[in-house]
Amino acid sequence: MREFTAQRQWAAYHDPKSVLLALVGEVGELAELFQWLPAEQARDLAGLEPLQTRAGEELSDVLLYLILLADVLGIDLAAAANAKLTAAESRFPPGQDPGRVG
Amino acid sequence: MREFTAQRQWAAYHDPKSVLLALVGEVGELAELFQWLPAEQARDLAGLEPLQTRAGEELSDVLLYLILLADVLGIDLAAAANAKLTAAESRFPPGQDPGRVG
Amino acid sequence: MREFTAQRQWAAYHDPKSVLLALVGEVGELAELFQWLPAEQARDLAGLEPLQTRAGEELSDVLLYLILLADVLGIDLAAAANAKLTAAESRFPPGQDPGRVG
Amino acid sequence: MREFTAQRQWAAYHDPKSVLLALVGEVGELAELFQWLPAEQARDLAGLEPLQTRAGEELSDVLLYLILLADVLGIDLAAAANAKLTAAESRFPPGQDPGRVG
Repeated sequence: MREFTAQRQWAAYHDPKSVLLALVGEVGELAELFQWLPAEQARDLAGLEPLQTRAGEELSDVLLYLILLADVLGIDLAAAANAKLTAAESRFPPGQDPGRVG
Repeated sequence: MREFTAQRQWAAYHDPKSVLLALVGEVGELAELFQWLPAEQARDLAGLEPLQTRAGEELSDVLLYLILLADVLGIDLAAAANAKLTAAESRFPPGQDPGRVG
Repeated sequence: MREFTAQRQWAAYHDPKSVLLALVGEVGELAELFQWLPAEQARDLAGLEPLQTRAGEELSDVLLYLILLADVLGIDLAAAANAKLTAAESRFPPGQDPGRVG
Repeated sequence: MREFTAQRQWAAYHDPKSVLLALVGEVGELAELFQWLPAEQARDLAGLEPLQTRAGEELSDVLLYLILLADVLGIDLAAAANAKLTAAESRFPPGQDPGRVG
């Protein structure tokens, strides 16, 4: 992403609030793929083409902007995510309810 | 994430639309960290504590739900993102404007 | 909203991208209320307290930022929404599928 | 919205989580209009066509799904928003900082 951005001299556009709005835009595109699927069939339907490929593309767009945002902010995203997951492991001992890591 | 989910028997909660809404929730928390920062100072202010740590946590939450969603959908996220970045490289030759990879 | 903003001299914070991120934050809070509810029970569960009141609060926060954003942009939101609904009526004749007005 | 939905027999699609994802999709489209605009020029640029009309359309889409969601949930959105604004008035006395009503 860093190389991609540098080659295009797009760094000027990449202030945190702009990249964050771009991330929101991609999350919106991801939501549009799933919004009207019946919940209990969503997983199976998303395994069929062309939805499988489209979902992979939109997940990727979200990931790429997330990595770009971390880079713009000087954050080591892999280290931060590992720390968060470790913290979630002690915060939510096995045997509890909601299913949240946030 | 798979192990974390399995140990807690949370897989029942993890249908695609639910995980996607959880991702939206985390993107919202990320947005709340940045919303009122003046755009041109956002990068510098986000380098100061406690915001730097908070931003790392929220970016991580988004990443963890994104990985979970990819796993639920049977998508190899790293492969999909590499393919998307390669496609963006030819779609946006260096020397153009917007700054979008989406 | 205009009066509320003026009395607090908050207009300086209310550039479009900031208000839009604030809206995203509130949409995230709304998503967090619903994310782990089973889809087919979500409507009934949302009729129970305290969720009913919480949902009303979060819907309101989204609405208030949406109105603020329209005001910042000089857009007559009621007129625009009526026009959009009229357009959707001819774009989607009765008897079709998706359920989208967007 | 109720009439529009009934004439098309789309109510079956309108469970809360689906309508919420549709709202997220529209917020994403709104974000895409603003993401790369320089923050300090965003307001002026959004006053020019075709952006002014596009912004009105996307704000409207968000509003229409918000109203639909309130209706699905049996919430009186206008009453809830008025109550929220009144509460914000006492929660944030004039002369303070952030600019949040949420």
